Amino acid sequence: MNMIIDAMGGDHAPGEIVKGAVQAAQEFGLSITLVGRQAEVEQCLRQPEVERIYAGCRPRVTLVDAPEVITMEDHPATAVREKPNSSMAVGMRLLNEGKGDCLISAGSTGALLTGATLLNKRIRGIRRAALSTMLPAKGCKTLLIDCGANAECTAEYLLQFAFMGSFYMEQMAGVARPRVGLVNNGTEEGKGAPLQKEAYALLRRAGEEGRLHFVGNIEGRDVLLGGVDVAVCDGFTGNVLLKCVEGTALYLMSMLKDLFYENTRTKLAALMVKPGLQQMKSKVDYKEVGGAPLLGISKPVIKAHGSSDARAIRSAVEQAMIYTKAGIIRRIEENISHMTLARPNQTGKEQ
Amino acid sequence: MNMIIDAMGGDHAPGEIVKGAVQAAQEFGLSITLVGRQAEVEQCLRQPEVERIYAGCRPRVTLVDAPEVITMEDHPATAVREKPNSSMAVGMRLLNEGKGDCLISAGSTGALLTGATLLNKRIRGIRRAALSTMLPAKGCKTLLIDCGANAECTAEYLLQFAFMGSFYMEQMAGVARPRVGLVNNGTEEGKGAPLQKEAYALLRRAGEEGRLHFVGNIEGRDVLLGGVDVAVCDGFTGNVLLKCVEGTALYLMSMLKDLFYENTRTKLAALMVKPGLQQMKSKVDYKEVGGAPLLGISKPVIKAHGSSDARAIRSAVEQAMIYTKAGIIRRIEENISHMTLARPNQTGKEQ
Repeated sequence: MNMIIDAMGGDHAPGEIVKGAVQAAQEFGLSITLVGRQAEVEQCLRQPEVERIYAGCRPRVTLVDAPEVITMEDHPATAVREKPNSSMAVGMRLLNEGKGDCLISAGSTGALLTGATLLNKRIRGIRRAALSTMLPAKGCKTLLIDCGANAECTAEYLLQFAFMGSFYMEQMAGVARPRVGLVNNGTEEGKGAPLQKEAYALLRRAGEEGRLHFVGNIEGRDVLLGGVDVAVCDGFTGNVLLKCVEGTALYLMSMLKDLFYENTRTKLAALMVKPGLQQMKSKVDYKEVGGAPLLGISKPVIKAHGSSDARAIRSAVEQAMIYTKAGIIRRIEENISHMTLARPNQTGKEQ
Repeated sequence: MNMIIDAMGGDHAPGEIVKGAVQAAQEFGLSITLVGRQAEVEQCLRQPEVERIYAGCRPRVTLVDAPEVITMEDHPATAVREKPNSSMAVGMRLLNEGKGDCLISAGSTGALLTGATLLNKRIRGIRRAALSTMLPAKGCKTLLIDCGANAECTAEYLLQFAFMGSFYMEQMAGVARPRVGLVNNGTEEGKGAPLQKEAYALLRRAGEEGRLHFVGNIEGRDVLLGGVDVAVCDGFTGNVLLKCVEGTALYLMSMLKDLFYENTRTKLAALMVKPGLQQMKSKVDYKEVGGAPLLGISKPVIKAHGSSDARAIRSAVEQAMIYTKAGIIRRIEENISHMTLARPNQTGKEQ
């Protein structure tokens, strides 16, 4: 398997990206293609800590020069078009040309999504690609979809997110009949804005037809308390939710830190629970979770967190391997007829 | 000061409501009017633990019979109209008649909001009343507004929420020039759905005019990390955010509990940090925070959490006292001309 990696995307590019990528190549016995400004990438590969690992997997590492870089200042909607020689755009073309099995980027989410939609295309019938992320939850893991790709959604998009998320949890996490919940401002039927009301009706019908295991509306608190395997929402709500989990966890962990640093007695207590605390910290740390596939794109594209360090990139590559092997894209293609609504004026343009 | 308390609203009504109310009457030297099924309320007052407190403040406690009860099964939009003799509706009429200074209810949020809008009326010029809640945040407290009243909003509503929240933080929490942030799916200008984009423009203008201290877009994570004093959003997003904070906190606290219960060593560690843990728990416990005023209603109406126990009701009454004294309603009335947009076809009906 060969992973195409955008070496220039993310807050810590190219150094941490290159480091994480070669670590993954070494650890998982993968081939990687590093796309970016070649001189800079080569310099990163010469860093002592990286060079040592690189020495062990050199034959499996390909460098592809891409002189341009998409930054957070570029407009997401046009970035890939305006910078065709950017690492991201070149990576997408390599993916289309079969020069790799999967593309991984920690660059601008908007640019990646728009670019992949433009260059790698959506699966036929999928209206919008979605971002998803796996959240730790009480007794299980919960996939949040869409967690930021589409600020504005229709009920049909949400139906498609539910199916894609459900397939993802089956194929990637081995969950049989994943429980799908609609994120809403109350659990009762009839809750929410028109979007949620319409989506509820579509999801309920899919549930009644036995195609999804829809369990109804869920509240923000239920996402982490383990009642569902897939939490469906529009990308605006999903982004706020995801960032809220992060913020709340950071806040609580900082309170906990203050508590343990208070005096000698509490410092001693900290030592006594250190392994458990580490475990807890790693559970709420997105870096362990890795990347999120752009579900709905016809080829495997993985978005790594913008602030990814080498460890996060390594996790994203691992996630990418599993996603590429899991066959979720084929599963979506096979089921697309149940995932779309009849459209009276279908022009084909939206496909 | 006399507080009108809906004795029948909430999951633990009337027992816990009555208990919390008499505790507050005793502790704060307040008069209270308990509205509800009189026989049931009297029975609650005869419970040994309550009777003891009641004995000390009896002359300040008035009972008003209200044979009907609004339940979660009643439709929020019509509940108060369909049950004019419910504790909630009677409480609202008592408030209008000047029989009390403030109404407190732990009953259905939707019914309270619709009822107060119908019976107690909005402040002239306010388009929608909002729910707000004070969240603990790093180094400060953050008021989240709207946290659930209005699933669908216009940009003008959000502008009004920003002003109301700002006045609230000034008058209730003593914050000078409260920092107002717009909850969005990114901090950059231009982020969000059309609602956020429009609201951003209005808030920026209010900031430029020196009427608000608008600091720009904030993400879900920033709400708890202390960058703003007022976090503005539509009620759908606010509800999801609030519940997400709750869920994440519950999840982390349960992990922490498991960690401390693991073995003798960790149990000993728990004892060593017990006071700090208690403090941390109380910080993330909504019950300490009390009630949330329906900002925008022309008279003080406080919503207590639906699962309020006596302690939460006591806090809600305390909050209600402060709110009633603070003069926020007058402040809104005085500033309403800056809080409204020119409306070409103003019919007066919306006012």
